[in-house]
Amino acid sequence: MATSTWFSSCLLNEGSIVSLPTKSYAGLTCNYSRLFDKQIFCSKPISVSAGLRHSLRNGIQCRALEIENSPSFSVGNKFQLDDVIEAQQFDREILSAIFEVAREMEKIEKNSLGSQILKGYLMATLFYEPSTRTRLSFESAMKRLGGEVLTTENAREFSSAAKGETLEDTIRTVEGYSDIIVMRHFESGAARRAAATASIPIINAGDGPGQHPTQALLDVYTIDREIGKLDGIKVALVGDLANGRTVRSLAYLLAKYQDVKIYFVSPEVVKMKDDIKDYLTSKGVTWEESADLIEVASKCDVVYQTRIQRERFGERIDLYEEARGKYIVDRDVLNVMQKHAVVMHPLPRLDEITIDVDADPRGAYFRQAKNGLYIRMALLKLLLVGW
Amino acid sequence: MATSTWFSSCLLNEGSIVSLPTKSYAGLTCNYSRLFDKQIFCSKPISVSAGLRHSLRNGIQCRALEIENSPSFSVGNKFQLDDVIEAQQFDREILSAIFEVAREMEKIEKNSLGSQILKGYLMATLFYEPSTRTRLSFESAMKRLGGEVLTTENAREFSSAAKGETLEDTIRTVEGYSDIIVMRHFESGAARRAAATASIPIINAGDGPGQHPTQALLDVYTIDREIGKLDGIKVALVGDLANGRTVRSLAYLLAKYQDVKIYFVSPEVVKMKDDIKDYLTSKGVTWEESADLIEVASKCDVVYQTRIQRERFGERIDLYEEARGKYIVDRDVLNVMQKHAVVMHPLPRLDEITIDVDADPRGAYFRQAKNGLYIRMALLKLLLVGW
Amino acid sequence: MATSTWFSSCLLNEGSIVSLPTKSYAGLTCNYSRLFDKQIFCSKPISVSAGLRHSLRNGIQCRALEIENSPSFSVGNKFQLDDVIEAQQFDREILSAIFEVAREMEKIEKNSLGSQILKGYLMATLFYEPSTRTRLSFESAMKRLGGEVLTTENAREFSSAAKGETLEDTIRTVEGYSDIIVMRHFESGAARRAAATASIPIINAGDGPGQHPTQALLDVYTIDREIGKLDGIKVALVGDLANGRTVRSLAYLLAKYQDVKIYFVSPEVVKMKDDIKDYLTSKGVTWEESADLIEVASKCDVVYQTRIQRERFGERIDLYEEARGKYIVDRDVLNVMQKHAVVMHPLPRLDEITIDVDADPRGAYFRQAKNGLYIRMALLKLLLVGW
Repeated sequence: MATSTWFSSCLLNEGSIVSLPTKSYAGLTCNYSRLFDKQIFCSKPISVSAGLRHSLRNGIQCRALEIENSPSFSVGNKFQLDDVIEAQQFDREILSAIFEVAREMEKIEKNSLGSQILKGYLMATLFYEPSTRTRLSFESAMKRLGGEVLTTENAREFSSAAKGETLEDTIRTVEGYSDIIVMRHFESGAARRAAATASIPIINAGDGPGQHPTQALLDVYTIDREIGKLDGIKVALVGDLANGRTVRSLAYLLAKYQDVKIYFVSPEVVKMKDDIKDYLTSKGVTWEESADLIEVASKCDVVYQTRIQRERFGERIDLYEEARGKYIVDRDVLNVMQKHAVVMHPLPRLDEITIDVDADPRGAYFRQAKNGLYIRMALLKLLLVGW
Repeated sequence: MATSTWFSSCLLNEGSIVSLPTKSYAGLTCNYSRLFDKQIFCSKPISVSAGLRHSLRNGIQCRALEIENSPSFSVGNKFQLDDVIEAQQFDREILSAIFEVAREMEKIEKNSLGSQILKGYLMATLFYEPSTRTRLSFESAMKRLGGEVLTTENAREFSSAAKGETLEDTIRTVEGYSDIIVMRHFESGAARRAAATASIPIINAGDGPGQHPTQALLDVYTIDREIGKLDGIKVALVGDLANGRTVRSLAYLLAKYQDVKIYFVSPEVVKMKDDIKDYLTSKGVTWEESADLIEVASKCDVVYQTRIQRERFGERIDLYEEARGKYIVDRDVLNVMQKHAVVMHPLPRLDEITIDVDADPRGAYFRQAKNGLYIRMALLKLLLVGW
Repeated sequence: MATSTWFSSCLLNEGSIVSLPTKSYAGLTCNYSRLFDKQIFCSKPISVSAGLRHSLRNGIQCRALEIENSPSFSVGNKFQLDDVIEAQQFDREILSAIFEVAREMEKIEKNSLGSQILKGYLMATLFYEPSTRTRLSFESAMKRLGGEVLTTENAREFSSAAKGETLEDTIRTVEGYSDIIVMRHFESGAARRAAATASIPIINAGDGPGQHPTQALLDVYTIDREIGKLDGIKVALVGDLANGRTVRSLAYLLAKYQDVKIYFVSPEVVKMKDDIKDYLTSKGVTWEESADLIEVASKCDVVYQTRIQRERFGERIDLYEEARGKYIVDRDVLNVMQKHAVVMHPLPRLDEITIDVDADPRGAYFRQAKNGLYIRMALLKLLLVGW
């Protein structure tokens, strides 16, 4: 969401019916949130955008174009969430607040006949590369809250992008049809560019090798739900640690907690890279590499397994075959794990977790997938109607 | 829907708010239906699954994993429908009960401003091969009843299946996002595997050369609606009888009625196979093969025409061309048909029914397609909220 | 929508519950609209079709199969809109009435928590070729009014069409599942064929090189909204005037207004064709060709830029490159334009408008895209529930 800090003269209260000029002035858009009886000053005519729909129902607030220079959260004692672009934008306090909302969402999803919290809101899923699982999770989240969805599963091939339209132009068009955009793109940084253009909230549902922040949030939420704490936990990251953005983002977020210990267990060819190791060290997180999964599993609260991605090995099928069979989570691993510990996996899995693990209550990966629904419900609620 | 017969200690009444443990125990899931003031005993902690959503609104019931060993219908004086997997699961009594609900659905679809019977429910259409007609019919059925839909039109290519995920894992993920799954798959038996895994209802919308039970139901429903009876009817099955799962399923279901006479009229290369003939004979259904469509049509209540499928002939285009022109339903056929008789076709049709037949009230194929909507509305209602 | 003028004996008032026979008689279908206490006579049994859903809520009316022979609008003092097939079907009075409804739609979209005007109605988007922008715009319009949507993005490849089904058969099936069909097709005239078959309204969302009437409507609506008038305006049509159906339709519609002056500014290879020039002359519209964009821009109310379409040049990339760089709308053009004038573009744009124009309030193209939403909301409302 493009924002402005440039306040000055037009005084609006919640509930005012604002008469807007037809023309919009570049770089000046508005985001309105639940400010209740606060008074907000706007300096210039406000762009006529979809963002306005929410606004006139609530209060009004203006902010600056550079999202990097402004805090993501700022309203009253609560945080104000504008966009979800990368895992790094969240601090411990914000994570905790989001998790609290996700817990409410669990109750809503299980007990009610269909919430109407987001009734009248429209989410566009703008997917430049397909990801059925992620898309269904977001669409389910929106619909469980009474909202509606516009879908593009194959925006890259089908849309105007094929004719050479810029991402910015596509965003300016789609924001006219919806209230929030969930975007998946093949290029790192695409979500940030979209957010800098849009006057409505953007959620990054994965941008190439870059970020997939809702996956990182649901992973941390799952650890919190399953283990009951985040400070002091011991986590084994297993499998492809070089290429998986999942484990990298998770390592990053875990560094926000106290007394965390991380074990890296991976084939030599896909070891965790030095940038993450250095980052963890700088944040006071203890980590070590190990080749002994059984020994590590016996000590950890969480064994986070990942898939070895064949596509990363190119012609070297021999290296792939060697790597994929090296660390398997099976009954032998379960047998040494503590009673309270869990096995996690971002899915899809192949055979890196054997199916007999599914029957054990400590196999948490399908609950983890379900937690993605609650996290996404929470984020949609926070972005569209606030706390 | 995976079910359990393993009852014992936890007592729940309708309306109880059940506090559920976080962990799920394998092989134990629950299905809740309208049991009203019945008391039900459950032996173990219950899995936290989407199935739970409906449950806590109503009553609670537990059943065993082997659907083959348990009756499909069992609650009170009414039937309990868990999944729709194959035509053979329905007996005469159940068919009659479903048709009664389908009649109610006709009224709802025609007269009301939009029913809210399934408000708050979410259906996932998980299509591993595209079938626009079938998908739209199910999605329309769900929306006509106030429900919502998550769509995947091309699950085979796009989803995690492409990365090697098993069907069972996909089902376990998707059941977390929805209340019922309508699945089309390219492999025979896929729907049964999905139902054995899922804790929510599965509807088979066609699995390869296997089953397409909702098509079979709508065919029988159409005969009942158009002719007014099923016992004692005379039906001509025309065209490709070797490859069409439609005519095979229809023959199977017709065998449940009394004094049925079936005529097979087909080119030599696509004759009805012996397994169906033997089955009909064993059930006391009279059948005969004929090469004279005009003579057969003059005696029948229903002329059920089918498309000769070019793709079944491979290189032998000559055989295809010979077969496809052999039995055409045209004005000459209509002229010998009785006033009350009808022409049916599962659609799409090419030229095996000439378009001048469309203008005759006895051309029932578009009404037949519409009946698919009512049958699917009825099944969705029965699976989600019961009778 | 297939219609009938053949009235005679069955008397129905609004609110009557009509008992319908099961069989439909060819060529006789019904359209029901808000006729309130008017009395209407029908001669024959009425087809059982989706069109009936609306009908029984309101009044009833019968009309003939030949849409060409009947006026598009005819009820009371207001117009009755049956289908939207081509720009030519609208006259000045109708355009003005539609624009009035579009203005109401702007208010609904901006101020309300979600309108329920079309609650219970189902729109099918039957797209035989993909057009994400147009599809999202229609689907957003439907959902902003509380309606529901069935989507097929790739009907050509996926549907029964691939098996050889005629468009007419597809329409007869899909009309059973929905209340209105928005269709995009690769063949000119397809929308008209669909409308002649369907008993529910059809909107043409582009049929090959033929028509794209909702684009033409939104263009004229945008000029009216931005400039405040249509009579007496001066419009420059710039870019590919030979191949763009947009500028051709716009020229056609502008001819309905008084004292309009049109300037054609285009590379030699893609000049406006004589049929449109002759048509304008016959309608008394003054036009001239010019090679001087700066001089033309200084005089016009609207500079309507279009994309040079590479695909039209085949092997002659040299001609394409020469043509595309010739007339660019940039700051130099803006500098000579009048304060009240605007730059329009049907989008997507490449570099024929430089991005620094976006920041100027006279860059109206994203507002123009948004107006497409209001026009489509208005048309859906008019076709489904009337004025």
